[in-house]
Amino acid sequence: MENTKPTEISSTKMFEGFNKRYKHHSPTLNCSMNFHIYFPPSTSPSQKFPVLYWLSGLTCTDENFIIKSGAQRVASTEGIALVVPDTSPRGLNVEGEADSYDFGVGAGFYLNATVEKWKNWRMYDYVVKELPKLLSDNFPQLDTSRASISGHSMGGHGALTIYLKNLDKYKSVSAFAPIVNPINCPWGQKAFTNYLGDDKSAWEEYDATCLISKFNDVAATILIDQGGDDKFLHENQLLPSKFDEACRNAKAPLLLRMQPGYDHSYYFIASFIDDHIRHHAQALNP
Amino acid sequence: MENTKPTEISSTKMFEGFNKRYKHHSPTLNCSMNFHIYFPPSTSPSQKFPVLYWLSGLTCTDENFIIKSGAQRVASTEGIALVVPDTSPRGLNVEGEADSYDFGVGAGFYLNATVEKWKNWRMYDYVVKELPKLLSDNFPQLDTSRASISGHSMGGHGALTIYLKNLDKYKSVSAFAPIVNPINCPWGQKAFTNYLGDDKSAWEEYDATCLISKFNDVAATILIDQGGDDKFLHENQLLPSKFDEACRNAKAPLLLRMQPGYDHSYYFIASFIDDHIRHHAQALNP
Repeated sequence: MENTKPTEISSTKMFEGFNKRYKHHSPTLNCSMNFHIYFPPSTSPSQKFPVLYWLSGLTCTDENFIIKSGAQRVASTEGIALVVPDTSPRGLNVEGEADSYDFGVGAGFYLNATVEKWKNWRMYDYVVKELPKLLSDNFPQLDTSRASISGHSMGGHGALTIYLKNLDKYKSVSAFAPIVNPINCPWGQKAFTNYLGDDKSAWEEYDATCLISKFNDVAATILIDQGGDDKFLHENQLLPSKFDEACRNAKAPLLLRMQPGYDHSYYFIASFIDDHIRHHAQALNP
Repeated sequence: MENTKPTEISSTKMFEGFNKRYKHHSPTLNCSMNFHIYFPPSTSPSQKFPVLYWLSGLTCTDENFIIKSGAQRVASTEGIALVVPDTSPRGLNVEGEADSYDFGVGAGFYLNATVEKWKNWRMYDYVVKELPKLLSDNFPQLDTSRASISGHSMGGHGALTIYLKNLDKYKSVSAFAPIVNPINCPWGQKAFTNYLGDDKSAWEEYDATCLISKFNDVAATILIDQGGDDKFLHENQLLPSKFDEACRNAKAPLLLRMQPGYDHSYYFIASFIDDHIRHHAQALNP
């Protein structure tokens, strides 16, 4: 019997709270997975924190956001726990899983694969179902009924699609440089063909630009920051104007901020993460 | 003829300013060296920024502070340029230079080695002489006559010793978990034996606790943060109480803050870097 209960593997104090890293066996993915939680400082032992999930981008793990974003600063003062999962199953040794940076390991795309070969790639169920239950079962200091979701690039795509498909589960969403229309960009087409097969109606279930017309009853404004000098913007991987247009048609509230001169890196994220944490704090701690 | 003029090798926008990385040939070290500058945003083309040098610790390069500290946030608003050199010469292929993490590559200790084998390890002259001249010759937006210095661990040792030996060149000093009494700790004894030989009077020239009795006419309070759960504190590598005692004897102003629960990592630095930047801003932009 594998250990599905999370084991703490590191703990580091930061801004009076703690970055803690855990390891557990995921039945959804059938492998061992790591995740980070940043716990803000407690004012009383019974204090419960709302949760902001952060979904990272291609090639990242559960570590990048914790090390580079500086999000803990405002999470500490706003009293929001940050939950940062990994980006894909690891260690399954599926043939070809590590052949490219944009598919397989580090590139789960937060969907449930339907092609047999990639059957373990079920990051959608992992993030939406397994992880929240694991948190509420094991961390009494977290109030998972108050949850929001954010992410970067592939993880921004994950945050938007997961939010739109689960408006009852998340109070708000935001994203940095998200892949908002994956069915129309090379990254998305490569991933969806391999994970979901050739039926494009299945692809639309994981495309924020398609989903917004179906699920437009969003309570909090969708916040997106996009760097103006992001090379992936210019390579048409991100397509924010498509999402902007779809939001207008659907009358869904979107605040899309173009940030001149910024690129796709964590330096960009660090520059604006405070605004995102505060955006979620308004929805989580009204 | 090697290129001693710095060449820009990357530029990334952050907090409205720019992290820029440069490469140059160092005549002092006789190898190619990288350094980072964070330029705060300019309000006018003629604006000149004071400089805060950051000296990193063992195993670090010019990248760690730029990626992990979050120092750019307050440097941006305070209008202070951050200058971050590497920690030792690299690429000289001296036999044994990479055999241990605490000596040779990544472990220059900010001194001028006198043992022939390590004659290129002249990080003291590099930081105190070559780099300031290179900055004033090549970056008109920097006012190197207004400079302060800070660092972490081995780099905290570097900042303190360089400051004390050059009170005319730096307006203020601060350090995170510095090695303040290297002649009495294993890291210092290993490095000094190899770089400086067996004459312990030479060692004292690079020991902050020895130097403070000679150079105690410091203008700004010396700020030191030390994590209470720092394993190197408990292994007697850092010895802050020795420096505290020496400062009391010398009547030198020291603010030594023990920070309970914090370790030796950049999470600790990120938690308190704002205070350090503001401490230096008071001296640099009075």
